[in-house]
Amino acid sequence: TIDGLRLNEDIAFTSRFGATPRGGIRRLALSAEDRLVRDWLAAQGAALGCSLAVDTMGSQFLRLEGSDPTLPPLMMGSHLDTQPTGGRYDGIYGVLGGLAVLRAFRAAGYVPRHAIELANWTNEEGARFAPAMTASGVFSGVFTLEQAYGLADRDGVRLGDALQAIGYKGDEPCGAHPLAAYFELHIEQGPVLENEGKTIGVVTGVQGMRWFDVTLIGQEAHAGTTPMELRRDALLAAGRLMVLAADVAAAHGPDAKTTIGIIDASPGSRNVVPGEVRMTLDLRHPDDAVIDRMEADFRTQAGEIARRAGIELLIEESWGSPSVPFDPACIGMVRDAAAKAGLSHRDIISGAGHDAAYMARICPTAMIFIPCRDGLSHNEAEYAEPDDIVAGANVLMRAIMAADEH
Amino acid sequence: TIDGLRLNEDIAFTSRFGATPRGGIRRLALSAEDRLVRDWLAAQGAALGCSLAVDTMGSQFLRLEGSDPTLPPLMMGSHLDTQPTGGRYDGIYGVLGGLAVLRAFRAAGYVPRHAIELANWTNEEGARFAPAMTASGVFSGVFTLEQAYGLADRDGVRLGDALQAIGYKGDEPCGAHPLAAYFELHIEQGPVLENEGKTIGVVTGVQGMRWFDVTLIGQEAHAGTTPMELRRDALLAAGRLMVLAADVAAAHGPDAKTTIGIIDASPGSRNVVPGEVRMTLDLRHPDDAVIDRMEADFRTQAGEIARRAGIELLIEESWGSPSVPFDPACIGMVRDAAAKAGLSHRDIISGAGHDAAYMARICPTAMIFIPCRDGLSHNEAEYAEPDDIVAGANVLMRAIMAADEH
Ligand SMILES: NC(=O)NCCC(=O)O
Ligand SMILES: NC(=O)NCCC(=O)O
Repeated sequence: TIDGLRLNEDIAFTSRFGATPRGGIRRLALSAEDRLVRDWLAAQGAALGCSLAVDTMGSQFLRLEGSDPTLPPLMMGSHLDTQPTGGRYDGIYGVLGGLAVLRAFRAAGYVPRHAIELANWTNEEGARFAPAMTASGVFSGVFTLEQAYGLADRDGVRLGDALQAIGYKGDEPCGAHPLAAYFELHIEQGPVLENEGKTIGVVTGVQGMRWFDVTLIGQEAHAGTTPMELRRDALLAAGRLMVLAADVAAAHGPDAKTTIGIIDASPGSRNVVPGEVRMTLDLRHPDDAVIDRMEADFRTQAGEIARRAGIELLIEESWGSPSVPFDPACIGMVRDAAAKAGLSHRDIISGAGHDAAYMARICPTAMIFIPCRDGLSHNEAEYAEPDDIVAGANVLMRAIMAADEH
Repeated sequence: TIDGLRLNEDIAFTSRFGATPRGGIRRLALSAEDRLVRDWLAAQGAALGCSLAVDTMGSQFLRLEGSDPTLPPLMMGSHLDTQPTGGRYDGIYGVLGGLAVLRAFRAAGYVPRHAIELANWTNEEGARFAPAMTASGVFSGVFTLEQAYGLADRDGVRLGDALQAIGYKGDEPCGAHPLAAYFELHIEQGPVLENEGKTIGVVTGVQGMRWFDVTLIGQEAHAGTTPMELRRDALLAAGRLMVLAADVAAAHGPDAKTTIGIIDASPGSRNVVPGEVRMTLDLRHPDDAVIDRMEADFRTQAGEIARRAGIELLIEESWGSPSVPFDPACIGMVRDAAAKAGLSHRDIISGAGHDAAYMARICPTAMIFIPCRDGLSHNEAEYAEPDDIVAGANVLMRAIMAADEH
């Protein structure tokens, strides 16, 4: 069984690497803090007698050998990077929950048939380097290594150079070995489980998501002398697009989500009408056809707003991930594990992207969710109950054992 | 008479200090570029045999002695600092036009009764340190020296330290000597003169303006999992306030202007609903009572928007300058000068703030405008015709001579 105390202690302990004053974590991918938590994870694996591999994308793989070396390994995993003002659970729980499973197997002297690997994927959040889920994307063949190395953060630092800088450019080729299955444990990051009082979410898939870079070009002008009707105010037009984005979500039902997370207006002076705005747009829906319609609606109406405002508008898709159905057999193993553990559960679709969404392309995959307080994530106040933490890890352990017997 | 060739050459030459690739100038107050252009101005004054004083706010005063030392000096002036992406004329024209007047007097051996001073005021734009017209504000007693020294730029550098850093913290006390009158020459920065085909604007005053810092506090949340109706999206609410600001201007007639020039959204990640936004707001109208109503309307409706969005809203006035009527006698001297020079002219109210607005508090003041292409200012493409440049300087010279005889 899972050592629940130890697991919760690990979560508290690792929150020190990049701790923020408000109780969250700032541990951007490939930062100094990311390096420290990676070193810590490697040491834990070594103490358990696991071997460690680091691939060319910097992902870490702790490995417990199985009794049958002819079988492909079973993999658990998630990520240790965070948002700029992230919480203590998003991703971290999945890695430390997997570590708890390895510890439980070791403590019980249990030797599975398959080798069991635990992955810590590089740059899942997409906060420092966009797009998200970069390393699992390379592992599963969605991106090339060259594409990933070439991604630049907002200071112009390339992912490949950042990997080198923290000493985590490994030599294991990405995605070199076949896998029997992949399971990822995570907080829900939304309000559904909490609202319904369920402990376990049996994740059946991940909704579709699409990212855009939006550029508006107007004309810089004097704030005191330029009549309103002669202005080509890029920020005012951007404001109209913010309202439009919310309207587009409303028009496509309760599952539609639109977010503008980053905005930059230049020249950035109080008495200058902004001449240029760059912002991001994130569109999501479980049904890709609805995302297509959301995008089309946004493009049409945004084009109309820009035309009327004399603004040049560019909407460029920077990344997209179609909706992903997980593997029915793996989903069944998670559902059975929750039932056998006597935990309340329900099927759920993930609103967030996860490394599991890419892993599903190359092996049977499923995920396990637990509730988080107020459905809050990507927030320093992110919180999950210690009992739920332990319950989720138990389900992960049982699902792995079921897959091992499969 | 004015040496028009030399004046236009001076404008072209000084545009090198901070030249941008797109033909404009980036010469923020008290930057290295500002220091260079100040040194250049001081050298020009010395070559003309002018004395030079630098006051504790770093403003430079070139002085040509008059024949009657008992009379208070007449002052001309403007500024050499620019917006982050500013033009070659805003402020610069007034200083170099004044220099052209001093040169003309010297060349003609003309000795006025009053001493003539030419001021280059520190930090007029308010782009690096807000508020604008800082040094003329201290000179005229609107701000204390301590307030001005304490202003911080966006990197936290204090104005007092920046003055010291470029070696322009002078020892002349601010506003120590009484003045007979103040005249400022400037491009209109708006479209009126150009549209009406007039060469000279006889500026009768400056409209009122008020600056605000607006803060919106919502809640950071996950872009993929947080249902739209549970969000407290600070940026979406900011977008609604941008549209509101434009609506408030429209509701108060063609002379009302509202501008949001700076915006910062945190945490600034594509897949995080922004939890906090800070932005600026600039309200202007020739009638202060209308500004009061614009502010009241904005506050009421913004409060309603914020309440509905679950956003905490702060609207803090950071600076204001009530509308300023210039001195009728000085205005008359400008009007007569334009008429005697045979130049088409009209009365006009300034939409932009100017050092003259503060100088009007302590001495008889007026301004002279010339047209600028497409009414464009606070823009790298700012442009004024060489002939208009010379015409305006001639009007300044005649107005000074009229004031000298007064
Ligand atoms: N789990 C998670 O927050 N991933 C980040 C990718 C996204 O969904 O935006
Ligand atoms: N003349 C000028 O652009 N001054 C800046 C102050 C303002 O009007 O915003």
